[in-house]
Amino acid sequence: MIILFGVFIRYNWESDAHWAESKHNLSDIENDFYYRYPSFQDVHVMIFVGFGFLMTFLKRYSFGGVGFNFLIAAFGIQWALLMQGWFGSLDYSDGKIKVGVENFINADFCVAGCLIAYGALLGKVSPVQLLVLTLFGVTLYAVEEHIIIKIIHARDAGGSMVIHTFGGYYGLAISWMLYRPNLDQSSRLQGSKYHSDVFAMIGTLFLWMFWPSFNSAIAGHGDGQHRAFINTYLSLAATVLTTFALSSLFQKHGKLDMVHIQNSTLAGGVAVGTAAEFMLTPYGSLIVGFCCGVLSTLGYVFITPFLEKHMKIQDTCGIHNLHAMPGFLGGVVGAITAAAASDTVYSHEGLVNTFDFKDEFKDMVPTVQGGHQAGALCVALIFGIGGGILVGAVLRLPIWGDPADDNCFDDEAYWEVPLGGSRAQCSQEEMRVPVALPFSVRIPVR
Amino acid sequence: MIILFGVFIRYNWESDAHWAESKHNLSDIENDFYYRYPSFQDVHVMIFVGFGFLMTFLKRYSFGGVGFNFLIAAFGIQWALLMQGWFGSLDYSDGKIKVGVENFINADFCVAGCLIAYGALLGKVSPVQLLVLTLFGVTLYAVEEHIIIKIIHARDAGGSMVIHTFGGYYGLAISWMLYRPNLDQSSRLQGSKYHSDVFAMIGTLFLWMFWPSFNSAIAGHGDGQHRAFINTYLSLAATVLTTFALSSLFQKHGKLDMVHIQNSTLAGGVAVGTAAEFMLTPYGSLIVGFCCGVLSTLGYVFITPFLEKHMKIQDTCGIHNLHAMPGFLGGVVGAITAAAASDTVYSHEGLVNTFDFKDEFKDMVPTVQGGHQAGALCVALIFGIGGGILVGAVLRLPIWGDPADDNCFDDEAYWEVPLGGSRAQCSQEEMRVPVALPFSVRIPVR
Amino acid sequence: MIILFGVFIRYNWESDAHWAESKHNLSDIENDFYYRYPSFQDVHVMIFVGFGFLMTFLKRYSFGGVGFNFLIAAFGIQWALLMQGWFGSLDYSDGKIKVGVENFINADFCVAGCLIAYGALLGKVSPVQLLVLTLFGVTLYAVEEHIIIKIIHARDAGGSMVIHTFGGYYGLAISWMLYRPNLDQSSRLQGSKYHSDVFAMIGTLFLWMFWPSFNSAIAGHGDGQHRAFINTYLSLAATVLTTFALSSLFQKHGKLDMVHIQNSTLAGGVAVGTAAEFMLTPYGSLIVGFCCGVLSTLGYVFITPFLEKHMKIQDTCGIHNLHAMPGFLGGVVGAITAAAASDTVYSHEGLVNTFDFKDEFKDMVPTVQGGHQAGALCVALIFGIGGGILVGAVLRLPIWGDPADDNCFDDEAYWEVPLGGSRAQCSQEEMRVPVALPFSVRIPVR
Repeated sequence: MIILFGVFIRYNWESDAHWAESKHNLSDIENDFYYRYPSFQDVHVMIFVGFGFLMTFLKRYSFGGVGFNFLIAAFGIQWALLMQGWFGSLDYSDGKIKVGVENFINADFCVAGCLIAYGALLGKVSPVQLLVLTLFGVTLYAVEEHIIIKIIHARDAGGSMVIHTFGGYYGLAISWMLYRPNLDQSSRLQGSKYHSDVFAMIGTLFLWMFWPSFNSAIAGHGDGQHRAFINTYLSLAATVLTTFALSSLFQKHGKLDMVHIQNSTLAGGVAVGTAAEFMLTPYGSLIVGFCCGVLSTLGYVFITPFLEKHMKIQDTCGIHNLHAMPGFLGGVVGAITAAAASDTVYSHEGLVNTFDFKDEFKDMVPTVQGGHQAGALCVALIFGIGGGILVGAVLRLPIWGDPADDNCFDDEAYWEVPLGGSRAQCSQEEMRVPVALPFSVRIPVR
Repeated sequence: MIILFGVFIRYNWESDAHWAESKHNLSDIENDFYYRYPSFQDVHVMIFVGFGFLMTFLKRYSFGGVGFNFLIAAFGIQWALLMQGWFGSLDYSDGKIKVGVENFINADFCVAGCLIAYGALLGKVSPVQLLVLTLFGVTLYAVEEHIIIKIIHARDAGGSMVIHTFGGYYGLAISWMLYRPNLDQSSRLQGSKYHSDVFAMIGTLFLWMFWPSFNSAIAGHGDGQHRAFINTYLSLAATVLTTFALSSLFQKHGKLDMVHIQNSTLAGGVAVGTAAEFMLTPYGSLIVGFCCGVLSTLGYVFITPFLEKHMKIQDTCGIHNLHAMPGFLGGVVGAITAAAASDTVYSHEGLVNTFDFKDEFKDMVPTVQGGHQAGALCVALIFGIGGGILVGAVLRLPIWGDPADDNCFDDEAYWEVPLGGSRAQCSQEEMRVPVALPFSVRIPVR
Repeated sequence: MIILFGVFIRYNWESDAHWAESKHNLSDIENDFYYRYPSFQDVHVMIFVGFGFLMTFLKRYSFGGVGFNFLIAAFGIQWALLMQGWFGSLDYSDGKIKVGVENFINADFCVAGCLIAYGALLGKVSPVQLLVLTLFGVTLYAVEEHIIIKIIHARDAGGSMVIHTFGGYYGLAISWMLYRPNLDQSSRLQGSKYHSDVFAMIGTLFLWMFWPSFNSAIAGHGDGQHRAFINTYLSLAATVLTTFALSSLFQKHGKLDMVHIQNSTLAGGVAVGTAAEFMLTPYGSLIVGFCCGVLSTLGYVFITPFLEKHMKIQDTCGIHNLHAMPGFLGGVVGAITAAAASDTVYSHEGLVNTFDFKDEFKDMVPTVQGGHQAGALCVALIFGIGGGILVGAVLRLPIWGDPADDNCFDDEAYWEVPLGGSRAQCSQEEMRVPVALPFSVRIPVR
């Protein structure tokens, strides 16, 4: 990695000390750093705290959830800089990749795809398998992104297609390849407990709050970022209401289910990703958010059990409901919104800026753009499912040290777990017994 | 909600794709988004993580604390955009509300008022009651804000009056209306436990750290935001020292009480809200912070028990000490500081900018402004208490599904609680019993 | 404190209401506030949440970890504004210290030094001792910083020398002075438990994510901040991989140790502090991060036990591995990178900007600058060790109320601990006893 960076990676003109000479009449504040760094940090929090803590909900796999998330994200961003560089910001004049803050945001996005896939496999794979998954996942992502953004010229600021559809189906396909028929041997560990659910809420809330930054981070300067933030924000707000309502509707006694609140509330951010920088209008965002809340909650109630039972897909975190389906929906919404764009709504200059109708694409029209968006969605699907099956096949090789069926969802497998902790807190049974009894006493322990 | 947004809400000129045409010679970086978005995100974190986790301190109501906070905040911001729009940014030429990042900050502020009120009622009301409380609360807030800011022309950047005084007394009045004489039936659940106190510290710290952003978020561009941040920061720092000192003074054996540390440390931010953008001077901020720390800690030690015993006000989180009293104090400080303003201290242009002495108010002088500030404080009080009694009367109707007295502070009422969790962790009694022993057994426990 | 602030502290020109008059042709967005405030908030999160939660890992000292961190940070920043003001931003024309956002960042940095020292002493000192430690620590820091930055004219944007080397050795020297031979009396409390480790991960992740902001917060506008962020980010990413690999290598059965993951992953940010704004190149950053990960993890495995056994230094959090050694390494890297600087790499103007070769230093050359950097590192070491011994001697006086040997690492000493909490969760033994027994049974419970 160090050698590859030594050969390929250099500062771009905005982070190089030559900036003082080359900036012409720009003010220092117009360095791209000040446009994007706050958003970058928000995205960064989502990747490490958001995804990390969202995966702490299992009663005995919190270390693995947040720890392995940390590992593969830190590995993935380095690899992504190289991979995305080769397909994107490579300067052909001197064969170097020039990096600045936007590349780092893109690297975080790329890693997000792999973390989504991890969600489906949480507790069932070894750290080495995760590194392999990330290595291939990042590579696939970089190719897929290049095809979608550069070749097909689709727009996808928030990555509904590029990140979520790809990452979701990638994870599900791998999970399908790694199906464990006897997973119920560790079913005692497959639930949450009171405090692990509260930890997971940390993840949920940071994801929810910073999603507007996620979708606006690489949108156009000025009105583009501003609008992407508004659309995402409104969509997310609508999803929360829908999720609470439906969760209460489908539970016994109208009680709320933490699984829905932790996950489905976020689906609105996924679905508005592609269209975030378009003129989706505020009420359009609400409609998208509403539909997503319904879709995602119903997914947890009906589709996840169905997938597990009939399709042999064990989806620990329910990424099908949170990323795959909403991402697909987001791609469709993006295609429709793009096809419906017009000079009246955007102004001519606005249309050109938003859809980047420049250079070789300067004769593009919105309706054709809509078609390209739809094509991009298919590419994301194909890469996700195809890549997942391929990588799943690799991960089935018996050399990666994956845990036994009755050892899944258990931090003991890969972590030094503090003694008191696991005993005192982690299972009800262990709670009952801790009285040393003398021989010949009969006690009807409940 | 979708229909209302469809009819009324539009992007404002800074988030509309026409920006490219209409921005004239502004640089993209001068879009209001870049002035306010980082502050907005900090405020957003305060609303969802700050308030949410601050309310997880109860041993068995953490789901409700953070979950219902999430629900009513997400509902409230949508409703607030409409309500504040009708009274504020409605463009009469075409009957649309034009929204941009500043409106979203204001919506978060508006919701803060309702979340404060929730603090008094934590654990004693149903989610439906909370939605009703928010619906009316947001509406009252929008009217009150319009009167204070637009009609009285008072300045209140950090909302000591508009948010905290209003929200605090609104919650207390409702709590008074919903008095439960037999609440001690659930007294076993009315405390914290070790880890729920640590969770609450997450809320405290995020509120404390980002309060400078709260008070500076909608202050004037440039020096206004800069100064509001400095004043708030210093006031908060002073409050922490005072709180630790007093907490240790009033406890047996000089021990510290987590309740004070979690709450009173924040009072300084509340009290400096109105005066934050004024030339309060750094030592002025320290004095305000010091007074607030004293007031708030004494409030927890003496006033809250008094209110509960003699005034029939049950205030779960102690919002009287954290929001109501400090908010009132903040209003007074604001009035005095405004009345004492002068051309020498502010420069003429600075005075005009800070107090917005423009258009119809261009003949205003600081002393008169001080009077207006005092008037505004009264308006906030009246709206808080009056509105609270009104809404409390509505909430007493027996149709809202509020929990029984012995069911208060218990997540079981509204949430699917994981089995192991509640048993193993939540109450000492349950810990004691789990072995039914037969008569005449001798057990050498250790 | 209020009086001192009243006499000395004033707003600087960018936060004063005279800004409107004095800003000349600057746009409001060019107020330093907008350059630095997002970074400031990130640093602020690191100080309060990052350091605070990193210290919650002990099973029964979470209140003390996060609470006392809060106390001394809030005290320290006020004192630091005064101390750093006297040595730095004091305006001699009117004897006032003019403060703006950059001063507040520096105050946070100053406090970081003391919090590092607290890490070595965690659980073994009283709050009063901590206040004394902070009072002296901040004063020493201000003098040391003045000598290093102003007199020696060394550059240290991320504070490898000024903050980490100083703070690390300051804490270790105090710990050596306060050596407790019978500390094993409280060894039962000296470990973590499951959930306290998850809490500590909150601290780790926020430190990790925001370290790029820490190192870039006071770097030069424009390319300086941009480059500091990139270098830090890459170094940290490399450290994570190295730490995971080594942690697994040195544990039985290849399991991972939470102590390493929580701490060593951060060492890369420390070591790249001085050189962050230099043209370290991306692969240079990776190399630094890699070395640090190795050094820090090996430190936990071998050096910390050695220090405790043979050097009488009890280092609760392992700050020697996380701050002292990496900080020293960072100073060395900084000296080498500075000495190797050239016009070709930086451009002439870039070189002048980066190393501030202006005014009295306009004839400076990089090689000499390298020597100055090395000298600065020695100053930091001397101040750290010397100051620590001095302050340690003061803290040994028997007047500060420090806890007894068997009372260390126990929140009960200084906090009201909720009953259920400590019983139910904190130690396995206590778990065993609470059994309600029927009449006529004699059980010698403890």
